[in-house]
Amino acid sequence: MPTQISHRITSNTRLHELARQLRVDSIRSTTTAGSGHPTSSMSAADLMAVLLSTYHTYDFDNPHNPNNDHLIFSKGHASPLLYAMYKAAGAITDTEMLTLRTFGSRLQGHPTPAIPWVDVATGSLGQGLPIGVGIALAGKYLDRRPYHVWVLCGDSELAEGSIWEALDKAAYYGLANLTAIWDINRLGQRGETDLGWNTAAYRQRAEAFGWHAQVIDGHDLAAIDAALATARDTTGKPTVIIARTIKGKGFSEIADKNGWHGRALPPDMAERAITELGGLLDVRVAVTKPEPGESAATDASVEVALPTYELGALVATRKAYGDALAALGARADVVAMDGEVSNSTHADEFAHAYPDRFFEMFIAEEQLVAAAVGMSVRGYIPFASTFAAFFSRAYDFIRMAAISGANIRLVGSHAGVEIGQDGPSQMALEDLAALRAIHGSTVLYPCDGASGAKLTAVMADTRGVVYLRTTRGAYPVIYGPAEPFTVGGSKAVRSSPDDKVALIGAGVTLHTCLAVADALAQEGVPARVIDLYSVKPVDREALREAARITGGRLVVVEDHYPQGGLGAAVMEALAAEESPPRIAHCAVQGLPGSGQPQELMDAAGIGRDHVITVARALLTTERTGSG
Amino acid sequence: MPTQISHRITSNTRLHELARQLRVDSIRSTTTAGSGHPTSSMSAADLMAVLLSTYHTYDFDNPHNPNNDHLIFSKGHASPLLYAMYKAAGAITDTEMLTLRTFGSRLQGHPTPAIPWVDVATGSLGQGLPIGVGIALAGKYLDRRPYHVWVLCGDSELAEGSIWEALDKAAYYGLANLTAIWDINRLGQRGETDLGWNTAAYRQRAEAFGWHAQVIDGHDLAAIDAALATARDTTGKPTVIIARTIKGKGFSEIADKNGWHGRALPPDMAERAITELGGLLDVRVAVTKPEPGESAATDASVEVALPTYELGALVATRKAYGDALAALGARADVVAMDGEVSNSTHADEFAHAYPDRFFEMFIAEEQLVAAAVGMSVRGYIPFASTFAAFFSRAYDFIRMAAISGANIRLVGSHAGVEIGQDGPSQMALEDLAALRAIHGSTVLYPCDGASGAKLTAVMADTRGVVYLRTTRGAYPVIYGPAEPFTVGGSKAVRSSPDDKVALIGAGVTLHTCLAVADALAQEGVPARVIDLYSVKPVDREALREAARITGGRLVVVEDHYPQGGLGAAVMEALAAEESPPRIAHCAVQGLPGSGQPQELMDAAGIGRDHVITVARALLTTERTGSG
Repeated sequence: MPTQISHRITSNTRLHELARQLRVDSIRSTTTAGSGHPTSSMSAADLMAVLLSTYHTYDFDNPHNPNNDHLIFSKGHASPLLYAMYKAAGAITDTEMLTLRTFGSRLQGHPTPAIPWVDVATGSLGQGLPIGVGIALAGKYLDRRPYHVWVLCGDSELAEGSIWEALDKAAYYGLANLTAIWDINRLGQRGETDLGWNTAAYRQRAEAFGWHAQVIDGHDLAAIDAALATARDTTGKPTVIIARTIKGKGFSEIADKNGWHGRALPPDMAERAITELGGLLDVRVAVTKPEPGESAATDASVEVALPTYELGALVATRKAYGDALAALGARADVVAMDGEVSNSTHADEFAHAYPDRFFEMFIAEEQLVAAAVGMSVRGYIPFASTFAAFFSRAYDFIRMAAISGANIRLVGSHAGVEIGQDGPSQMALEDLAALRAIHGSTVLYPCDGASGAKLTAVMADTRGVVYLRTTRGAYPVIYGPAEPFTVGGSKAVRSSPDDKVALIGAGVTLHTCLAVADALAQEGVPARVIDLYSVKPVDREALREAARITGGRLVVVEDHYPQGGLGAAVMEALAAEESPPRIAHCAVQGLPGSGQPQELMDAAGIGRDHVITVARALLTTERTGSG
Repeated sequence: MPTQISHRITSNTRLHELARQLRVDSIRSTTTAGSGHPTSSMSAADLMAVLLSTYHTYDFDNPHNPNNDHLIFSKGHASPLLYAMYKAAGAITDTEMLTLRTFGSRLQGHPTPAIPWVDVATGSLGQGLPIGVGIALAGKYLDRRPYHVWVLCGDSELAEGSIWEALDKAAYYGLANLTAIWDINRLGQRGETDLGWNTAAYRQRAEAFGWHAQVIDGHDLAAIDAALATARDTTGKPTVIIARTIKGKGFSEIADKNGWHGRALPPDMAERAITELGGLLDVRVAVTKPEPGESAATDASVEVALPTYELGALVATRKAYGDALAALGARADVVAMDGEVSNSTHADEFAHAYPDRFFEMFIAEEQLVAAAVGMSVRGYIPFASTFAAFFSRAYDFIRMAAISGANIRLVGSHAGVEIGQDGPSQMALEDLAALRAIHGSTVLYPCDGASGAKLTAVMADTRGVVYLRTTRGAYPVIYGPAEPFTVGGSKAVRSSPDDKVALIGAGVTLHTCLAVADALAQEGVPARVIDLYSVKPVDREALREAARITGGRLVVVEDHYPQGGLGAAVMEALAAEESPPRIAHCAVQGLPGSGQPQELMDAAGIGRDHVITVARALLTTERTGSG
């Protein structure tokens, strides 16, 4: 045995025992729970036994030590193995381990950061490795600390495209501080994977993507040790250990047998398995701790000089975003990344000012969001941008980021039919619905340069998944530089106690609402105009007030499909009122094509003239609602 | 020159002229439009000139000829080139070509099936190739016709993971009828791609993924011709032609220069470019037509014996889906595919009965949906299934499928907190919001085996993107086998003229609503229970009636986050009523963990007791609404 092991695990026998214990505990916890994935844990037990005892450098007593390694189970369903490792490391008790999958236990079916040693939630496959790329990027380019990022992947998830986005970017950025461990146990949920045990094909693919690849027997402890040592010491490129393993290894009744994915062993089988594995064990591992370290203090107190714009000047909110982000760059914790469209999103303003903190992720939106999540794990404030439509490519990553409690800022430009000639493939018309439904998300949508800049700054200090929707075209600045904007706020841009109707817009449609209010004023009808720039959370009190003043006559106008967007946000806020207002809703009807922005907005039913008609119709009806 | 060309293009000179014309026309149309992507068109003009004149077998007069080849511009922004090809083929006039990007023109900024020769919308990169895989799967395994699928890809989009999902599956299924043409012009939107002109790396990757790869000079007409001939004749595996090209090729002022992506040339530059390219040309190509053919008649009239279940029997809707899908297999146009979880979604019932029409897409949800879109292009009725949560991985593909007008059926199992122990990564809690916002989509959510089976059959004949949400657990069958279910329908499962409140649920929460109604009945309060199984379109009349009868007291209960789901569907339907009802809303609060289904539903605020409290509170308030 290599000497690295002997100083903590006293002998090869002890290491074998640890591996057996990890298997036994994976069986015990899942059988107790009555569900879970013991066989997927057993295939990787030898790999993780060696990693834990010798290579994973981690202080379980201080998960905030910035020098700690990172270990991500991209195959999150192997959580019983991870929790067995925690027990072996002395981080949890056997009793807690046996609470697996029960209500209130932090040991959930798939790992989440409810556990202090878990960086991110996994369980939607193919996400752990791209997030590991984000952490490793931070390690190499920002933290410049010696920690290593270890990612355990299953073989089934290697079919996910996101894995190959990760391989591509990890090689491009030369992430030698990243090691992927591929547990090639051949069997997926319902049968063999498409490559089975073809480790040569896996090696060829990984090498073609620029990685250092090693193929080993994943149950040969010496081979594992040598491979991990090489991985840790490789320079210039990331390493993948392609480990041929056996699913259910250690229990002959089910080893390498189909039909045992995601099934706990019945108690009698579990008993036979534990007997075959040598019975109960209580091996403890003294995991190597890194040097103590202090996290770099974030400098949120740095003075940021946000851009200001003249009232009436034509400024696109995407430009205001770029300007404000560049200003926020004064804070060393602010980083940015973009999906190869930074000259459109205006993230390039930041890239030019702070090239060392800007990461080009090319056209790989899943890796774009995953990189942001990884940066968030390391305490940075990541702003990730692309066309709003293309965040739909990474929706599962955004969903999982919310479960991870990640602090990421997503900025989508070119939203709605307003983009014009490029046509519907480039028009985000579902993004407000999709992003509002994300757990704990914040959704912001400024209408002018001033609010765009201010809300960019607000984002930086707003926790969770924060989404900013920006507009392609330039529209007049309507707010002065001193105007405050807050999460959950709104602005009554026009208001009087005599308002007969409230026009509610955000982003580009706020300008439509202003034009409609002007037209109605000509007719002697005072109309309130509300800038609902905080789409989630929404300013319920302002909406209630508008309903009260106008006798329950609200018109919502949005550049988005009718379902789930700004209109739904208003309705959800007011539906349970004692006397709910009437809400007329102008949203994008039909499938748009190409054209000039105003042509498309008119055709979609969100242009000035249509909204005037809708508002007039509402005015002819009885007062209702909270009035 | 190979002889294939000489019989239609009279000489090598003519072919050169065609390529020049494609460039000239790409410049003319974009300069006329004032926007668009001429340089991305110019790099691929030689490739497409040879393809169109010699290899693309297509009857522009009859796009429905089932023997037509398929040509997909995965790099949809090169649409000016595609439209220039249409003109050269005599399919459109020069005048129409110059309507590019104008309002009402079918020649949009990115191609869509508004054009009869376009199979699918592109413009969100990395989608054309996976969809081409779907078409090629149909060609090889279902149609068994000799058509070829040609897909033009840009190099920037090769960073998308979906491309590698496509490569993996195309090789796995041995799709020799598929050729990808990679236009390696080095420059993306804002700079060089991550691999630049490293064609060796591209070759290595493609070969590692099991493709036959050829690297050529993409401006050498003879080399292009030879490569396309080889591609067409290769057996056993798909072919990729990796063509080194120059962006803006043909106009020296901008060729291979950064900063010219997505920019039309100003008129004076356009004039110089056209002069350099040899002036205006009017080359016409007699595109080879395939043998005439009849589309296989779809046999929608075949008798389908849907499964039936005993009233009160415990049946999971996912099982009913599998049973019904197997029954629908009697129709030869019904096909199915799954993301390696068919034993959970119960798509395996179909796979066992009709293995020749079932396609395992492994854990690659983007390719899963793309395969369905491709099958839909060929007239099949594809049912694609995975866990509901994991369709979020393919959200951009679903969005684009709607723009394509594709007819696809998506079936998501294991929705909501009801799934229990596996935890939040596996719980779809945003899917109703996301899928409702898709243009023209239908969203169905059955509560029992009978409605599950019936709605599966309804899906088959419903056009557009149709989504069915199924539940993990088994619940009592409440409908008899004769009960009809329709898109846009609902069921008043309990009703009387004296109802004081309406409880609205779908799927698992319908059973909660029934339990709440039972409890309220004990208190002498008659409650209406509405099964809103058609979440989109929603049964507005039934909701109006419920509001009228109950004096505007509605309670909506859903296993979904509060934004954009069933509650929003009800609110959107009724918000503009003259006197809108009060809508109390019980949806999932907080981030769930693991636990038993009932524990999690109770904790989320959608359990029986909480709903009773909410309903009682509503009953204590004044009557309002439409009553």
